[in-house]
Amino acid sequence: MHKLQVELGERSYPIYIGRELLADSALLAEHVVGTQVVIISNDTVAPLYLDRLRAALGERELVTEIILADGEQFKSMDTLNEIFDRVLTDRHSRSTTMIALGGGVVGDITGFAAACYQRGVKFVQVPTTLLSQVDSSVGGKTAVNHPLGKNMIGAFYQPQAVLIDINTLSSLPSREFAAGVAEVLKYGLICDAPFYRWLQEQMPKLLAREEAALAEAIERSCACKAEVVAADEREGGLRAILNLGHTFGHAIETAQGYGNWLHGEAVATGMLMAMELSARRGWIDREEVKGFRDLLLAVNLPVRPPSEMTPGQFLDLMGRDKKVLDGRLRLVLLKSMGEAVIVDDATESELTDLLEHFLKAA
Amino acid sequence: MHKLQVELGERSYPIYIGRELLADSALLAEHVVGTQVVIISNDTVAPLYLDRLRAALGERELVTEIILADGEQFKSMDTLNEIFDRVLTDRHSRSTTMIALGGGVVGDITGFAAACYQRGVKFVQVPTTLLSQVDSSVGGKTAVNHPLGKNMIGAFYQPQAVLIDINTLSSLPSREFAAGVAEVLKYGLICDAPFYRWLQEQMPKLLAREEAALAEAIERSCACKAEVVAADEREGGLRAILNLGHTFGHAIETAQGYGNWLHGEAVATGMLMAMELSARRGWIDREEVKGFRDLLLAVNLPVRPPSEMTPGQFLDLMGRDKKVLDGRLRLVLLKSMGEAVIVDDATESELTDLLEHFLKAA
Repeated sequence: MHKLQVELGERSYPIYIGRELLADSALLAEHVVGTQVVIISNDTVAPLYLDRLRAALGERELVTEIILADGEQFKSMDTLNEIFDRVLTDRHSRSTTMIALGGGVVGDITGFAAACYQRGVKFVQVPTTLLSQVDSSVGGKTAVNHPLGKNMIGAFYQPQAVLIDINTLSSLPSREFAAGVAEVLKYGLICDAPFYRWLQEQMPKLLAREEAALAEAIERSCACKAEVVAADEREGGLRAILNLGHTFGHAIETAQGYGNWLHGEAVATGMLMAMELSARRGWIDREEVKGFRDLLLAVNLPVRPPSEMTPGQFLDLMGRDKKVLDGRLRLVLLKSMGEAVIVDDATESELTDLLEHFLKAA
Repeated sequence: MHKLQVELGERSYPIYIGRELLADSALLAEHVVGTQVVIISNDTVAPLYLDRLRAALGERELVTEIILADGEQFKSMDTLNEIFDRVLTDRHSRSTTMIALGGGVVGDITGFAAACYQRGVKFVQVPTTLLSQVDSSVGGKTAVNHPLGKNMIGAFYQPQAVLIDINTLSSLPSREFAAGVAEVLKYGLICDAPFYRWLQEQMPKLLAREEAALAEAIERSCACKAEVVAADEREGGLRAILNLGHTFGHAIETAQGYGNWLHGEAVATGMLMAMELSARRGWIDREEVKGFRDLLLAVNLPVRPPSEMTPGQFLDLMGRDKKVLDGRLRLVLLKSMGEAVIVDDATESELTDLLEHFLKAA
C-alpha cells in the first residue's frame, strides 16, 4: 500500500493506493469514525463491491445505502434532492460520514451532498474507476450539473481520505478504462514530461491492466494532482492547469447531453485540440501533436469532436464555461511538453480556425 | 458609521453599521469589485430599496436582479434552482458578486447560492430587517430549508462585507421588528448580562426605533456574534450557544410549516422554554424567567408554543434537529444570566414535563 498526503493545512488528508483497500477494516475504522454512515453508490458498482465495503465497516448504529442510477445524466440537483430526502428520513446527524463508492459521478455528488448536508459532514472517497482514482476523487472539487452547464453547482470540499483499491479496475469496462487513461495522460502533459514518455512506452502494459503499471500510473497522477491542489486549493490560478482540454471537452459534453460522451473521452479530444493550438502558436512541436493523436488512437479514445457540432455552437458553449473570467475565455495550453500555461488572449478567429480544422476532419 | 471586524483569518470581513449605507457608492465600490453583479431581493424589499442600491453600484457590465417572493416558505431548493437558472442564463462568471438585499431568507439563500455557484463566488450582505442585521447576515451560515427540517441544506460561507443600513428599519412592519428584538435579547442572555439589563431599561426607546438605541443594540449584538463566530466558525462547540431557544423554536417552525410563525417569534418562545428549564435546574432565578416573559409580552412576542402541538410531536421534531450529536439531544441553557451552556443530558421525562407545562398553558 502506498500513501500520499494532500497538504492543505487543517484540511490535509491521505490518499492510499493498494490492493483490496475497500475490504480493509482497519483502514476504514481509522477514517470512518462515528456510528452513522451513508454509503452512496450506483447500480453498476454496488452489486460488485458494496457488500464487502459494508462488511469491512463493521457494526454501526445507522447505515443508509443509497444506490443511484449509473450515469452522468444523474449527476443532477434532482438526484441530490433524493439523497437529502433519504438521509433526512433516516435522521443522520451532523456527525455522520458519507462514503462515495463509485466513479466520478458518485464521488462528485456524494462530496457535494456531504458539503451541504447540515452545512457539512465528513466524507470518504472510495473511487472505483481509473478516472475518479486519478482525478475527481482527489482535490475536493464536488458538484452537480445544470442543464446550462456542467459542474456549475458545487463546492470545494475535501474528503477525510481517499482509498484507491486498484482491484476495482479489473471490473471496469474498456471504454471507461480508456477514459481514465485520458486523465492519466493529462498529468504527463501538464506537469511531468518524463511520466508522459513513460506512458508512451508503457501504454501496452497499462492497457493490459498490469498491477505494477497501474499502481505506478495512479501514484504519479495523484502525486501531480496533490501537488497542484496543495498549491492552489480553490483554483485561484495554478490549479486551472488541471483543466487542460476541459473547456473544449465540456462544450462537447454539454452539446451531446451528459452521458453520451464519457468525460475522459471529451477531455481526450479537448486535449488534442489544446495541443494543436499550442503547436500553432509554436510552443510545442507538431510531431508531439501527432504522437499524442496516435496515443489516443491506440487507447481507443476519440480524436475528433462530434461531426454535427458547429464552431459557433462550440464558442457559445465555451463562453458559458467556468473558466471565463470577466468575459475573457481562458484556455489551458502547453508552453512545452510537461508545462501548462493559462492564456486569455485566444481570438475568435484563432478559435474558429481551430474548430473548423477539427470539425472538417470530423 | 461604525465598523466591526469579524476575525476569521483570510476570511475576515467588516460589518458596517450606519445611516444610508445602501446608497453609499464609495462603500459599495470598495466591497463589490468586478463588473458583474447579481442582486437578490424579495417583492417587499425591492420596491423600497433596490433602485437606490442599483444606482449606488454605478455602471456595471452585467447586472441581474432576482426578485423572490417574500417568505420563509420560499427558502427552498426550488427557489435556489430558479436563482441558478437566471444566473446561468445571464452567463455570470466566477468573478460575479451576489448581493443579498433583504432579510434573513434573502441573505441565507443568496449566501448559499453564492457558496455553490461555480463552487463559490463573492457575496455581500445588505440586511434590511433587524433580525438579519443582528443575526443571520453575520457569521456565514447559509442554507435553504427541506420539508423534513429547517436549514438542513447549506454551507458555512462568509460574505465579503455586511452593510447594515439602519434606515431600512423604518419600513419594517412591527411584527418583524419584534421578531428581531428576540435575537437582540438573545445576545444579552448568552454573553452580555449588562447589555440585557440595558435592554430591559431601554426597550421603550428601542421599540420606538430611536436611532441611537437602534445603533447601540445592533452594534452590541453584532459584537457578541462576531466574537463567538471568530472563536468557532464551523460550530465545533462554542458557536452552538447562539442557538439558545432554537431547538424548541425550530420544532415550532417545522410543525407550523415555514412562514406561519416568524423565526424570531419561535426563538422567543424557545428561549423562554430554555430559561424555564434552566430555572428548574436551579441555574437562574425564577424571577428572571418571569422578567423575560414580561419583556417578551411588552415586545409583543409569543410566550407559548402553538396549542395544537403535543409533547411527542415536539420531541420528535427536536430529534431531527442539527444539534443532535450521535443521537443525544443537545440544548443551550443558561448557567447564569449572560452565560450560556450546552447540555446533552436532558432526559425525556424532564423535557416532557417542560413541554406539558408550556402546552397546558397554551
